[in-house]
Amino acid sequence: MRIPFEQVKSEIKRAMIKAGLTEEQADICARTHAESSRDGVYSHGLNRVPRFIDYVNRGWVDIKAEPTLVKSCGCIENYDGNMGIGITNAKFAMNRAMELAKNYNIGVVTLKNTTHWMRGGTYAWDTANNGYISICWTNTESCMPAWGAKVPCIGNNPFCIGIPRKEGNVVLDMAMSQYSYGKLQVTRLKGEQLPYAGGFDKEGNLTTDPGSIEESMRILPTGFWKGSGLAIVLDMLAAVLSNGLPGSEIDKTGKGSCGGCSQIFIAINPYTFGTEAEINNILESTINHLSAAEPAREGDKVSFPGQRTAQTRKDHNEKGVIVDEAVWNDVCNL
Amino acid sequence: MRIPFEQVKSEIKRAMIKAGLTEEQADICARTHAESSRDGVYSHGLNRVPRFIDYVNRGWVDIKAEPTLVKSCGCIENYDGNMGIGITNAKFAMNRAMELAKNYNIGVVTLKNTTHWMRGGTYAWDTANNGYISICWTNTESCMPAWGAKVPCIGNNPFCIGIPRKEGNVVLDMAMSQYSYGKLQVTRLKGEQLPYAGGFDKEGNLTTDPGSIEESMRILPTGFWKGSGLAIVLDMLAAVLSNGLPGSEIDKTGKGSCGGCSQIFIAINPYTFGTEAEINNILESTINHLSAAEPAREGDKVSFPGQRTAQTRKDHNEKGVIVDEAVWNDVCNL
Repeated sequence: MRIPFEQVKSEIKRAMIKAGLTEEQADICARTHAESSRDGVYSHGLNRVPRFIDYVNRGWVDIKAEPTLVKSCGCIENYDGNMGIGITNAKFAMNRAMELAKNYNIGVVTLKNTTHWMRGGTYAWDTANNGYISICWTNTESCMPAWGAKVPCIGNNPFCIGIPRKEGNVVLDMAMSQYSYGKLQVTRLKGEQLPYAGGFDKEGNLTTDPGSIEESMRILPTGFWKGSGLAIVLDMLAAVLSNGLPGSEIDKTGKGSCGGCSQIFIAINPYTFGTEAEINNILESTINHLSAAEPAREGDKVSFPGQRTAQTRKDHNEKGVIVDEAVWNDVCNL
Repeated sequence: MRIPFEQVKSEIKRAMIKAGLTEEQADICARTHAESSRDGVYSHGLNRVPRFIDYVNRGWVDIKAEPTLVKSCGCIENYDGNMGIGITNAKFAMNRAMELAKNYNIGVVTLKNTTHWMRGGTYAWDTANNGYISICWTNTESCMPAWGAKVPCIGNNPFCIGIPRKEGNVVLDMAMSQYSYGKLQVTRLKGEQLPYAGGFDKEGNLTTDPGSIEESMRILPTGFWKGSGLAIVLDMLAAVLSNGLPGSEIDKTGKGSCGGCSQIFIAINPYTFGTEAEINNILESTINHLSAAEPAREGDKVSFPGQRTAQTRKDHNEKGVIVDEAVWNDVCNL
């Protein structure tokens, strides 16, 4: 079913205020969850609200906590998230990175002891909308086997890059697994197979069957050994640069998915070395080159990262946000 | 056959001096090519020397050129590579990034109009050996179809991350294609198939047959749409931050592979926010966690990025560098 964006947002906000969030916290979080659903990232939108509120109720997310500065070194700063709300902590960190970039052309904020930031793309879209390039990522608990391992021992560590562009921002938002557990579930419930192998079954064979992967928990890193290696170094970098927890230690906090995780937020002024006209030419040359490429399937068009998200957003803004009826009723009854 | 490292280096150096490089340029370039072979990255080691010298002879690489500062903004600087030697330009840029990091904890050097840097991992190993974290990448000419495209329209844009560690540096060096053209060629010559699909054949079917992919030129981005998206944004970022050429414009320079490319070099002090003991604990926790993970195949061990390279290096240092006899003779006769 479809529900107007504002209604999705206000219903989430109501539930969050009931859970104890302040008016301001609830407003930011509700908007962020509603935007994720509106952009087609259902797993971290409305669908994720009950789990977030459950975490608040369990005390895994401390709604009274705010990020505190640990150390400042010019354009690079370190904050303790104090196990506060993942969304408001991450928004604070990215805003601070943009402030630093205003002064230094580049700003880096490293954040430790924070909680689940929900959709990583949120922060890359925000910075792009504010005219800044961004690179940000988070580590997570162990939820995926490393390449060559049989059991989950690395995070899926979402990595995002945003580039502002007048005619449509370029935003990449990728986790290091080929598919999310959410995608496996949705595909299984439809009785379908994945388009490409998404993991190993219990016997160690690559499979497109979502149920077999959910059972084995042997979800596939994107690009096999490549996504596995990238996940490992992103985890190390996040923890080292924030002096926070790596995935191996998040596993031990007992505070749910991403409880105590480490995050990096980088904002860069796109016009540090080029004029607006020069930078526009670079982006348009690349995008025109992609659009002109012969598609693999006749009638298709090669898209750039963020382009399809923008289409979904437009559609949902016009016709209402697609929500799962059961989840919608759950949230309305929270 | 195996040749001692020093002999590989000195033979390459001789050939490079003959091609017109100065003693110092030849020493740096020869060492870098020899180290790549020694580390098992044969495609960009000895094997690549004849092509580099061909580029010098054609004037595609200007051996008289040196990088010049375009603009400096505190910890972030922009240089013009002036189509000089890719290796010496990149070494200069990464060294400069480390100098900036000495002052600012982070240093960013963006480099435009440069030429092929050979193995990207070179610069990540260098910085790790010097005690700095690094993130660096390059764009390239169009050599891979974007996801959904039938023809090459994006670069494979190698992306490297290095983290210094006493007991063995962590270094990731990944191109955005699942396999390199070098790997396809080697596999085809052995009459073997790739372990996993590496591209599409002319009919548009995924295939493990290297010859079919070389024919179609439809090499697969790592992780399908994910590696494709990452390649696109890395290209844009490199060009935007250096005010240099994106892949679509490198295609038009007519100066060979990576002729006129854009590169980013980031160096970071790993102890900006943590003590050496704290940072070591983070790295050891992660690596112990990986080593302890149950392997997919009995007797195997889960490795971290850079670990196997270090093993190959040790083996080659002890027993001599493995070289292709025909290529070795070619270089000796250059």
